[in-house]
Amino acid sequence: MAETETNLDQLSVTTIRTLCMDAVQKANSGHPGAPMGLAPAAYILFKRFLKHNPKNPAWIDRDRFVLSGGHASALLYSMLHLFGYGLEIEDLQYFRQWGSKTPGHPEYGDTPGVETTTGPLGQGIANAVGMAMAERHLAARFNKKDKTLIDHHTWAMCGDGDLMEGVALEAISLAGHLGLGKLILIYDDNSITIEGRTDLAFTENVRAKFEAQNWHVVTVEDGNDFNAVQKALQAGKDAVARPSLVQVKTQIAYGSPNKANTAGAHGAPLGEDEVKLTKQFYGVADDKTFYVPEAVLKHCRKALTFGEGFESAWQEIFDSYKTEYPEDAGLFVDAISGFLTDGWDAEIPYFDPSEPAVATRAASGRVLNAIAKKLPALMGGSADLAPSNKTYLDDSHDFQKDAWDGRNIRFGVREHAMAAVMNGIYLHSGVRPYGGTFLVFADYMRPAIRLASLMKLPQIYVFTHDSVAVGEDGPTHQPVEHLAALRAIPGLNVIRPADANETGLAWKEALTAVDSPTALILSRQKLPTLDLSQKDGDFKYGAYTVKNVMNPDMLIIATGSEVHICVEAAQKLETDHQIKAAVVSMPSWELFEKAPAPYKERIMPAGVTRRLAVEAGISMGWEKYIGPEGGMLSINRFGASAPGATVLKELGFSAQNVVEKALKLTRQ
Amino acid sequence: MAETETNLDQLSVTTIRTLCMDAVQKANSGHPGAPMGLAPAAYILFKRFLKHNPKNPAWIDRDRFVLSGGHASALLYSMLHLFGYGLEIEDLQYFRQWGSKTPGHPEYGDTPGVETTTGPLGQGIANAVGMAMAERHLAARFNKKDKTLIDHHTWAMCGDGDLMEGVALEAISLAGHLGLGKLILIYDDNSITIEGRTDLAFTENVRAKFEAQNWHVVTVEDGNDFNAVQKALQAGKDAVARPSLVQVKTQIAYGSPNKANTAGAHGAPLGEDEVKLTKQFYGVADDKTFYVPEAVLKHCRKALTFGEGFESAWQEIFDSYKTEYPEDAGLFVDAISGFLTDGWDAEIPYFDPSEPAVATRAASGRVLNAIAKKLPALMGGSADLAPSNKTYLDDSHDFQKDAWDGRNIRFGVREHAMAAVMNGIYLHSGVRPYGGTFLVFADYMRPAIRLASLMKLPQIYVFTHDSVAVGEDGPTHQPVEHLAALRAIPGLNVIRPADANETGLAWKEALTAVDSPTALILSRQKLPTLDLSQKDGDFKYGAYTVKNVMNPDMLIIATGSEVHICVEAAQKLETDHQIKAAVVSMPSWELFEKAPAPYKERIMPAGVTRRLAVEAGISMGWEKYIGPEGGMLSINRFGASAPGATVLKELGFSAQNVVEKALKLTRQ
Repeated sequence: MAETETNLDQLSVTTIRTLCMDAVQKANSGHPGAPMGLAPAAYILFKRFLKHNPKNPAWIDRDRFVLSGGHASALLYSMLHLFGYGLEIEDLQYFRQWGSKTPGHPEYGDTPGVETTTGPLGQGIANAVGMAMAERHLAARFNKKDKTLIDHHTWAMCGDGDLMEGVALEAISLAGHLGLGKLILIYDDNSITIEGRTDLAFTENVRAKFEAQNWHVVTVEDGNDFNAVQKALQAGKDAVARPSLVQVKTQIAYGSPNKANTAGAHGAPLGEDEVKLTKQFYGVADDKTFYVPEAVLKHCRKALTFGEGFESAWQEIFDSYKTEYPEDAGLFVDAISGFLTDGWDAEIPYFDPSEPAVATRAASGRVLNAIAKKLPALMGGSADLAPSNKTYLDDSHDFQKDAWDGRNIRFGVREHAMAAVMNGIYLHSGVRPYGGTFLVFADYMRPAIRLASLMKLPQIYVFTHDSVAVGEDGPTHQPVEHLAALRAIPGLNVIRPADANETGLAWKEALTAVDSPTALILSRQKLPTLDLSQKDGDFKYGAYTVKNVMNPDMLIIATGSEVHICVEAAQKLETDHQIKAAVVSMPSWELFEKAPAPYKERIMPAGVTRRLAVEAGISMGWEKYIGPEGGMLSINRFGASAPGATVLKELGFSAQNVVEKALKLTRQ
Repeated sequence: MAETETNLDQLSVTTIRTLCMDAVQKANSGHPGAPMGLAPAAYILFKRFLKHNPKNPAWIDRDRFVLSGGHASALLYSMLHLFGYGLEIEDLQYFRQWGSKTPGHPEYGDTPGVETTTGPLGQGIANAVGMAMAERHLAARFNKKDKTLIDHHTWAMCGDGDLMEGVALEAISLAGHLGLGKLILIYDDNSITIEGRTDLAFTENVRAKFEAQNWHVVTVEDGNDFNAVQKALQAGKDAVARPSLVQVKTQIAYGSPNKANTAGAHGAPLGEDEVKLTKQFYGVADDKTFYVPEAVLKHCRKALTFGEGFESAWQEIFDSYKTEYPEDAGLFVDAISGFLTDGWDAEIPYFDPSEPAVATRAASGRVLNAIAKKLPALMGGSADLAPSNKTYLDDSHDFQKDAWDGRNIRFGVREHAMAAVMNGIYLHSGVRPYGGTFLVFADYMRPAIRLASLMKLPQIYVFTHDSVAVGEDGPTHQPVEHLAALRAIPGLNVIRPADANETGLAWKEALTAVDSPTALILSRQKLPTLDLSQKDGDFKYGAYTVKNVMNPDMLIIATGSEVHICVEAAQKLETDHQIKAAVVSMPSWELFEKAPAPYKERIMPAGVTRRLAVEAGISMGWEKYIGPEGGMLSINRFGASAPGATVLKELGFSAQNVVEKALKLTRQ
């Protein structure tokens, strides 16, 4: 029997479903239910809508697809196999195993075609918002009337869980505000969560809620009605002024006689018997596993031909673009390859020690603006604290729906979405994002910062108001444990510069980082500029001596604003007590850990065992650097509301107290 | 001229405004704008609606008032002064100073009448939701047909910023789902944020969005129209089936000729000249500061008389309740005083080492259920992971709008709101809350956990799936840095039990904690029960010896599931290598730090310098316990997707590898 197109559609969907069941069953672990419910929507999206070239998953103008409910990873892997991304049946058979290309949740970098790491709910939606923002920005910057380089959609799939998470709710609000018409979110409305029926905890009117936020909403009453799904996705594309939610009512584990529509089908294999029964329901052989009919493969792999067509048409346009607009073409290539435009750091200002004191946040604002002038790919903003974080680019304007070329993003009071949107922006490629807020609110962003570290995205976080010196706003606004908590995240570089020049160097480290995000930790209060005439070593190694002495009796190690009282204390120790203390500025533990061993020994000689660490935060982790005979001046409690100088003084942060601590150490 | 009631209303509002301006001006720091815009709503609320007794801010059936936009603290302090809470003009003059009762943001415990610490936006809304939940639950549990002990409203005030924060959005959705009709949220719709006009980032239809989530919405077009405000608050009270949003359109810094309606009035003093001009606009003397007309004070302080009336009427009811329902009255007093009902821990199960292995999360579920039977004030749930977290109370049912007496809260996939709602529940008093999710998602809850620590609330977090042993779900679901990051929070007790019996003891510590929240860190995988026949010391001190030897050559210190491989390794070291290793189970650093010094020396003798710490997480902070000659078996990278046992093995967590590390140490 010749397969009709309709037959093939149905057979393809069935194949996706059985692949997902089989993969989960073989792994004896995973989430079969959502893939089985969502298979038609995923298939129709990949088959009829997605503009992509499976042979080149990095093609810049491809449609982006984000599976926000990453637990449904089997669905994505099945699609990537069928549509020719080079993921093979063996990979599906190795689902959720050590070293496989098919980990339990989609992991960026592990699998061709996986656009982002999803799994912690809500993050993928915000990533998709970021991708759609990057798309609009690059389109505005580079497209010419007759030559379109960037014009693609961002599709995302999510479940109920995503729509309960705050990070997604923030991002949804932002996307509606921005009117991201090329963003289409497919909502798997299956009425089931892990604890049971969704209505145990989630009874809002999703349509009305999205519409109130400037979204266009289409509902598909039956997720197995292929025509209805197709029409709805088309309607999503057609609504160009607003992002679209395509609400698809599905059955979790559709086709499973005993597990469909139950929470039991969410996160556990169906069981071998049930898999067979389900295959019987689908009308396919129940004794075959990982079976892909040849006709289905051929049918789906047409995407390879179409894909090459898409990209070569684009390439043709780009070739003529290069001829006609060589300068913009160069900038475009720089942008999408993440290349730092030549001379990007040429205007970073030098601050002379004789100049008036300047807060490192203010220095950061000057440095950022100097870089942004030369590096057009740099774009970012703040979670409604731009005037405090000094993150505004004076040479540009706001990124808004009537001004996509603006480079200043108004994230609103949405710290978590900011960080997750930044991940999407970076993952899109073409834009180097940064985002600012108070250091204490790093806690709000933490899940997305973790994902940036996991994905090795060189994000730049501008965290100002970095200690109890924040002052009057009190303990809720005074970070104490945040330096330690950020240092705890594997792969994240935490840099706390001591003065304006260190701030410039910190920005350089952040921008030249390739596979690590960077948290810049900046002061609210003004700080003098260090006189480095006695320096030894280099900032780039994470720690260097700002006050060098021959054969020191002790080391004083400090970060950020505390370096200054330590320099003062060291002078007093020498003058008043004949104690020679070298002072080390240690802006970054992570950079120091990567320094060559002899460098480490030079800056922190093993023989100098009397060591005092000074940091306006908790002591956790400093033991590593001060050793058993060391001491700490730290803050192992919450702060208090009072003028910043008062709080610092009350908590012992004065040169005099550093002297006393040092004397105690040396007299031991 | 005799003051009319209307005159007095206006004069009271003006007095509030001038007090706020003056306090900010004197501190030369703070947020004058919001208080000036919100003064009428706050005044009308306190004067005409709030059921409270200023002389006893702890009266259980008082209305709760939460200022979610805590930066408007001057407003709250002015109200507390005028309405007789014992906050004096001197306190207002000492606004934002060291040790004052009037810190920059309202701090729970610092000021009579302050119900919760607010400042980090969004938290207060979720706290209020928690208070309203506690109210409904206690009402259902204790009210009798003829005797109402609990029947009050929860009022909260918020700004635009609160309504952009994910934690608030989650809590708003939950409140609508639950139909918390006695919750009324007053929204200061002033169109200004720190970066400028709200419409830079926030253009949604707030009314429609709330209505879509089962909220009742009233709008006041002019926040200075006292009658309209009064009607709207009444409408909020009258809508009993849904929570109410009262949207009040205000002018930030109303009355300030040059700063009203500007972002500049948000977070900085108006300036002395502008304060004078504003007083002129209000028609009051511009040369007086902190001025409270006698008539205003008398007018507002009538609250003292009313308040005594409210409470004595309640007391009368309670007295007869005690006679009629002595048992319930006893439980009620136990509940609201946080007393652990006698025998609460009597049924905590003992697990014999001969029994089959049991995951600590499963043990936790049994312990929790055993305690819950005896301790009716215990109530909680999970962020949609109850079957995994084992947090469901089998003897009770769901807490829902048709079943307020249920003790199982369905938080939905809303981790952040869960933690912030728990803060509200505890602060209400009468309920001891707990909440569960995967350890990796502690990151989502972190800002609210921090506030629990700051407020010293003995919350109980049930964090299961505590290491890479999570397995197939991969690195997004495998905590690595989370133990360290939680230990970093001042005041939080982190307890990671090694087996089922330690889990019972951990729950005891958590429940008997008075001023510290506790994070229980529990395994997904099954663990044997420790044979403690050779034990020395006690769990309650945070570390004790599970395998004791005379004159040990070395110490092996571990937590949680790793204790078992260490015990096995110690046996091998003794048998195969004649090395005597004592094994210390160290469930809690924080408890150990509080142990007496001789106890610490007994468990970790200074003379035993060869120490190996074993924990399936980052090494940060362990240097403190292992010292300069110590070693670590830790995980300083992200995990990977594979069966849990495989991941552990690949990352070196086997008895054999502990042996090898130990040999390396002892041979140094």
